[in-house]
Amino acid sequence: MPSIQELTKFITNDFNRSLKSFPLPENPDYLYGPIKYSLKGKGKRFRPILVHLSGRKYKVDPDNIMKVSLAVELLHCFTLIHDDIMDSDDTRRNMPTLHKQFDISAAILAGDGIFTISHLILSGIENKPEQFLRLYNQAVLDICEGQALDKDFEGKEDISLDNYISMVEKKTGALLAASCYLPAILAGKTEDTIKILQNIGKHLGAAFQVQDDLFEIFGDETKMGKSLGSDIISKKNTAVSIESRKLFPSEWDMIVEEFDGKNFAKLRNFLEENKIKKNVEDIAEHHFSSAYDSLIKLGFDQYSDLYKFIKIMEERHY
Amino acid sequence: MPSIQELTKFITNDFNRSLKSFPLPENPDYLYGPIKYSLKGKGKRFRPILVHLSGRKYKVDPDNIMKVSLAVELLHCFTLIHDDIMDSDDTRRNMPTLHKQFDISAAILAGDGIFTISHLILSGIENKPEQFLRLYNQAVLDICEGQALDKDFEGKEDISLDNYISMVEKKTGALLAASCYLPAILAGKTEDTIKILQNIGKHLGAAFQVQDDLFEIFGDETKMGKSLGSDIISKKNTAVSIESRKLFPSEWDMIVEEFDGKNFAKLRNFLEENKIKKNVEDIAEHHFSSAYDSLIKLGFDQYSDLYKFIKIMEERHY
Repeated sequence: MPSIQELTKFITNDFNRSLKSFPLPENPDYLYGPIKYSLKGKGKRFRPILVHLSGRKYKVDPDNIMKVSLAVELLHCFTLIHDDIMDSDDTRRNMPTLHKQFDISAAILAGDGIFTISHLILSGIENKPEQFLRLYNQAVLDICEGQALDKDFEGKEDISLDNYISMVEKKTGALLAASCYLPAILAGKTEDTIKILQNIGKHLGAAFQVQDDLFEIFGDETKMGKSLGSDIISKKNTAVSIESRKLFPSEWDMIVEEFDGKNFAKLRNFLEENKIKKNVEDIAEHHFSSAYDSLIKLGFDQYSDLYKFIKIMEERHY
Repeated sequence: MPSIQELTKFITNDFNRSLKSFPLPENPDYLYGPIKYSLKGKGKRFRPILVHLSGRKYKVDPDNIMKVSLAVELLHCFTLIHDDIMDSDDTRRNMPTLHKQFDISAAILAGDGIFTISHLILSGIENKPEQFLRLYNQAVLDICEGQALDKDFEGKEDISLDNYISMVEKKTGALLAASCYLPAILAGKTEDTIKILQNIGKHLGAAFQVQDDLFEIFGDETKMGKSLGSDIISKKNTAVSIESRKLFPSEWDMIVEEFDGKNFAKLRNFLEENKIKKNVEDIAEHHFSSAYDSLIKLGFDQYSDLYKFIKIMEERHY
């Protein structure tokens, strides 16, 4: 039996091969040039791996597993492209973001095109239960709502951790959830199973985002594939800023004022000495625990591939 | 029997009522505020009317006709919102465009949301033939390709009328075509019928756009709901500019240089005296003729509602 590391490597390679050989026309270049550029970026492929592990457990036809994983990853790409415009981000996966490399118009259109291709792939899966596309589209709308809340929170100082987690469960959790439950729908699993998988995805969304909030400050720029500290500069609400402001409002304001995007030492010291880093790690851990509890309820015990993969995700450093 | 004017008025009112009562959440306001704003705009509802007339002919369930018409109009709204950003247009349907009223981020997200709602509505239609969503998504991709070609043509002086018509058949024709053939798919009509309806939509797209190119210069600003002459100012390729440049290259360059967005008299004179206006009207008429020929092939004779409605569209002045 392969180790979980070998298995995820196999799935990732298989997925990357499928994505690379996915037929895209040459013309119009204004549309497909940027789309091809954006698909060159090497993502961590968390979502496709979740789809494959869930699909294997539920004995879904391998061709359909691959289609769902491609659709989900393309949907993810689409949201990243549009979010990067909205958030004025310059770097993604160690490459200039699409609107930086081309322009905003090309990036809007490429996003729309990739979203549509994701739908086209799903329309190629035969005999889907009726709720498959309904829940898929509901997940996309949740992602839009999550992004709207995120934009709405910008500049506000009264966002609670609960508000933040609700936002993240939509913005990040909805698609992780879909990655888990879409294969189960294809396998004809019950409403109850779908709901528990949805719940697992929400917790994973919260846990990942809270981890990312820490990596934004404590991470490694090259491994992250983007510049760090931008959340602090743009005064974004994150688990770190919300917890810091709650416990040390005036000190946190000073730290933020003084931060110039390079002097990480003082910022990191502050968060470590005041146990805010530990606090935020505990929040992530709490959501991982809830995800494990639900997994076990569904029969994914600690020796199952899905459980082991989420354990790997929990222990990642970028 | 009601006249075609009474019938289209009835359909339009019925459609507007359905759109108005379509349930949209209050929050997050950052997403649904702009979406509601954009749905307030009174469009001509050409696409919903086409869906209803095609659906009536093919005896499609009335609830499903309404769903398809809502989905198609929302898809149209989504493309207008994103196109207006890409083309930096300020006014649409007598209102500030979405990105002018709010900002680019809100407009990108509202477009994504409306596109998703369009899909959600379609996922509520039960027992759809497999090709229904495949062709719907293919139509969206065609629209993206059409918009890409349009952007690509900007500033180029070697675009032929054929290039232009191919672009317009995608950008405008694809959705008019879908409005005609989606009800036929629900009614289980043959591939041949779908193909002829597709062909009709392409010709309507070409005919409408070529008419619009003339209205941009000879139309009435209030009725058009937007400022005129912007195609000339931004040196866009249109049927008018392509024909003018082909026949009178140096004169046309001068006319364009001298045009300041207000002095329409000289421009209009030039196009009328040199029979370019007549030329372009003939191009539109040619595509309308082809559409009528195909309609008759499908049994929509000159007394049918669909034929009569397209006749009305041909004779519109804005």
